[in-house]
Amino acid sequence: MYFSSMLSVVFLGFGNVNRHLCEAFFSSEKIEVLQVYNRTIIELPPSHISINFTNEVQKIKKADVYIIGIADDAISSFSETLPFSDRLVVHTSGSVLMDSISNKNRKGVFYPLQTFSKSRKVNFSEIPICIEAESESDLKILQEMGEIISEKVVEISSEERKKLHLAAVFVNNFVNHLYQISEAILEKDSLPFELLKPLIKETAAKLDTLSPTEAQTGPAKRNDLKTIENHLYLLTEENYKKLYQQLTKSIQNAQREEL
Amino acid sequence: MYFSSMLSVVFLGFGNVNRHLCEAFFSSEKIEVLQVYNRTIIELPPSHISINFTNEVQKIKKADVYIIGIADDAISSFSETLPFSDRLVVHTSGSVLMDSISNKNRKGVFYPLQTFSKSRKVNFSEIPICIEAESESDLKILQEMGEIISEKVVEISSEERKKLHLAAVFVNNFVNHLYQISEAILEKDSLPFELLKPLIKETAAKLDTLSPTEAQTGPAKRNDLKTIENHLYLLTEENYKKLYQQLTKSIQNAQREEL
Repeated sequence: MYFSSMLSVVFLGFGNVNRHLCEAFFSSEKIEVLQVYNRTIIELPPSHISINFTNEVQKIKKADVYIIGIADDAISSFSETLPFSDRLVVHTSGSVLMDSISNKNRKGVFYPLQTFSKSRKVNFSEIPICIEAESESDLKILQEMGEIISEKVVEISSEERKKLHLAAVFVNNFVNHLYQISEAILEKDSLPFELLKPLIKETAAKLDTLSPTEAQTGPAKRNDLKTIENHLYLLTEENYKKLYQQLTKSIQNAQREEL
Repeated sequence: MYFSSMLSVVFLGFGNVNRHLCEAFFSSEKIEVLQVYNRTIIELPPSHISINFTNEVQKIKKADVYIIGIADDAISSFSETLPFSDRLVVHTSGSVLMDSISNKNRKGVFYPLQTFSKSRKVNFSEIPICIEAESESDLKILQEMGEIISEKVVEISSEERKKLHLAAVFVNNFVNHLYQISEAILEKDSLPFELLKPLIKETAAKLDTLSPTEAQTGPAKRNDLKTIENHLYLLTEENYKKLYQQLTKSIQNAQREEL
């Protein structure tokens, strides 16, 4: 172990990411959750009642690591308001540069690459934790902190993290929107979205054994013009029609590059 | 049971769907797989060696149900070449009308709503089997046949099936293509696609507890223009840029409709 005594953390902000991180760290014996700060007064979950809470930056305690979990565009200015210096302050965002954090403290990033909802339990052990720091010693602290909850801690630069976040938008936000569109298509005919769930799960699970290129099937890949035409006829909404055409074209482009 | 003796089936064509159906039926004691027909000579899997094989339509045996599993646009003409009449002939396609099958036989559809790959095991019990037939008695045969392998057998008309298939293209083919794009984005920077897999799985698993509309997150939904702009700057390929813009616009449209 790099740090001889127990590592102590303070959470700054208590949105979905910090809430789940706090829960994971709180149940570990290798880390001490000293405090939660939040701009507005909030109630901690009943199981976390023993954790100190404050809504005043002046009362933030001394800790080994501060984890900022607030809106992306507030990270920089908030970090300026912290009333201490030369401590390790990290944020948890996929799309914000490490350098956005104020220079008066040591900077870092602790980005769990996952989607978090208030209502869903998270098993951190398989979630990649992408870390970044200015010094080797801070990187080591973040590495050890990550390994407390996850089996996959990787060093990722700010530039790489941008690309990861962009790719994550495709497989999470955009994919979820396609689920939403398919639900809307079925709803029009009172068909239950439930029917598609085994297909949705298998489409994701296939990646265990096949690359996305190997897994690609369907009318666009087969260049099955009759089915494509039928589908475009069935899509009455202009926006969905455009998306269908664009995605079909993109599949066929990718297909040509393969040949 | 509607049929007193064991139901017998013959598979016509041996692509992915029929291959998996054959395996599932073959391991059941409630159904007899009489024969596999295929236009070209193929080898059946070693475990299926006891099943009769033919590549001559004239030698197709008498059975209770014939299951056509061939290319969509070949179903109609192939069904005309069958040298028998008044028997129950079904196809397994999501996008072909029941009436495409030749009039000389009793028509039906037995459509398992799932994506099949040669290399992946399938657990049929959770896969919806969408059935259609011209008569109540044939529908009942397909219902019982479906229940041998699946807990979810539903009657779906040809018109409804078209919509289901269209929705399936969105959640399967199009979603998989988004996986492919994100892999391409990461590959450019030698970042491993592995890192995204927990996110991909959770995005699908979320639907167990949230609707797609409830599950939607991300820069498009938040109207986070700065991140959107950064992402468009990072996307050097024109085709991906267009898709990003179109999907972002579509998420924002859906968002407005919610309000």
